[in-house]
Amino acid sequence: MTFAAQILTLYPEMFPGPLGTSLAGRALAEDKWSCTPIQIRDFATDKHRSVDDTPAGGGAGMVLRADVLAAAVDHARAAHPDAPVLAMTPRGAPLTQARVRVLASGPGVTILCGRFEGFDERLFEARDIEQVSIGDFILSGGEIGAMVLLDACIRLLPGVMGAASSGDDESFETGLLEYPQYTRPAIWEERMIPQVLRSGDHAAILAWRKSMSETDTRSRRPDLWERHLDARVQSPSGAHEKKKGPRA
Amino acid sequence: MTFAAQILTLYPEMFPGPLGTSLAGRALAEDKWSCTPIQIRDFATDKHRSVDDTPAGGGAGMVLRADVLAAAVDHARAAHPDAPVLAMTPRGAPLTQARVRVLASGPGVTILCGRFEGFDERLFEARDIEQVSIGDFILSGGEIGAMVLLDACIRLLPGVMGAASSGDDESFETGLLEYPQYTRPAIWEERMIPQVLRSGDHAAILAWRKSMSETDTRSRRPDLWERHLDARVQSPSGAHEKKKGPRA
Repeated sequence: MTFAAQILTLYPEMFPGPLGTSLAGRALAEDKWSCTPIQIRDFATDKHRSVDDTPAGGGAGMVLRADVLAAAVDHARAAHPDAPVLAMTPRGAPLTQARVRVLASGPGVTILCGRFEGFDERLFEARDIEQVSIGDFILSGGEIGAMVLLDACIRLLPGVMGAASSGDDESFETGLLEYPQYTRPAIWEERMIPQVLRSGDHAAILAWRKSMSETDTRSRRPDLWERHLDARVQSPSGAHEKKKGPRA
Repeated sequence: MTFAAQILTLYPEMFPGPLGTSLAGRALAEDKWSCTPIQIRDFATDKHRSVDDTPAGGGAGMVLRADVLAAAVDHARAAHPDAPVLAMTPRGAPLTQARVRVLASGPGVTILCGRFEGFDERLFEARDIEQVSIGDFILSGGEIGAMVLLDACIRLLPGVMGAASSGDDESFETGLLEYPQYTRPAIWEERMIPQVLRSGDHAAILAWRKSMSETDTRSRRPDLWERHLDARVQSPSGAHEKKKGPRA
């Protein structure tokens, strides 16, 4: 089944953009996902095709109109009634790998990209729209955030990465950062690959990687580490329970 | 002065991509920033132009070689010695608006985009490279993350947004989420713009927006709210102290 991505945007020409290259681009060519950008401006009703107006109460910039955006969302929802509608906004819930896994296992996503000072809040009161943020920084619009979300989903679609890279070991899939990686040459600028990785001792390698994952998470991401410890306390059978949804 | 972006990547054709449109595209045309993608493969030394090899100690996927990547980084650093070198990796420090502000006020950035299972860790031991993550999810490569970082920087460059949108009120600039926005029509689907925003009473509007910022941050982002409270305790003169770097 094709994962259907609809993107509501003022810049439909941005898509598929970087998602037309490499892994996502091959998957697009193989119909593993479809990419339908929709011009928000087509849902404007006045002769100037206005999509925005000045903020109520004053302030800089422009706010996207609820009536125009709702018409665009209703149109996209009619085309794919089962796909959740997400809006990219810094006021949204931070995106997690657990949420990405759930979205990737569904029929697709409809993504609403903001610009300017954001959306008229009544849009979210009147329609079922999930507000999502990719991080605590501000972009010029939601389009690149939508590409982030789509790229994260697409690589998880069946057949896209291939059996060789299930991704199970990667950062966040276990609630921890991934262990450090090394490859040839064995010695580079007088730096050697850690001895254990060249030992052929599988159990020792596994133990070393687990220990490095824990050490690096503790020092680099105390927030993740704390959540990991909390989850283990709540589920005493251990880390395995956490595999699928460390932050769900 | 032109903000110099160099991007080390296996997919130079992805750039400027979406950054060639809209706000970032106009700024590029006006030489407010420059975009120089550099093909990592050009720094391979064997006849197959290899950039990667299998992980030491076994495992799925391929790891980017330290020797090839270091040669690419050294080349880029020679071209722009004052620009910090950043690598996009889920093992990195989470990107914040405070870090974006600092980067945007500098001479530019050189961004290293990973693919596959990531970089040989010795690269980071041997070279001064800042590891940055845009969030707790996995992408197929660093390119879209690099676009996120660049877009966040570019909109802050002098003259890009214009005086009307300083961005001071936006989410994270004060350590809080931004307040909700509204615009015309005053009544839509029987929902009215909040009365206070139509009162013309500036002090009341300011107070309402501050209160909504606090309420929404507390309910949607308890993590941000806690940090905000901690910062106020440490700096009893109040929230103003926090303006420039809520997470620095």
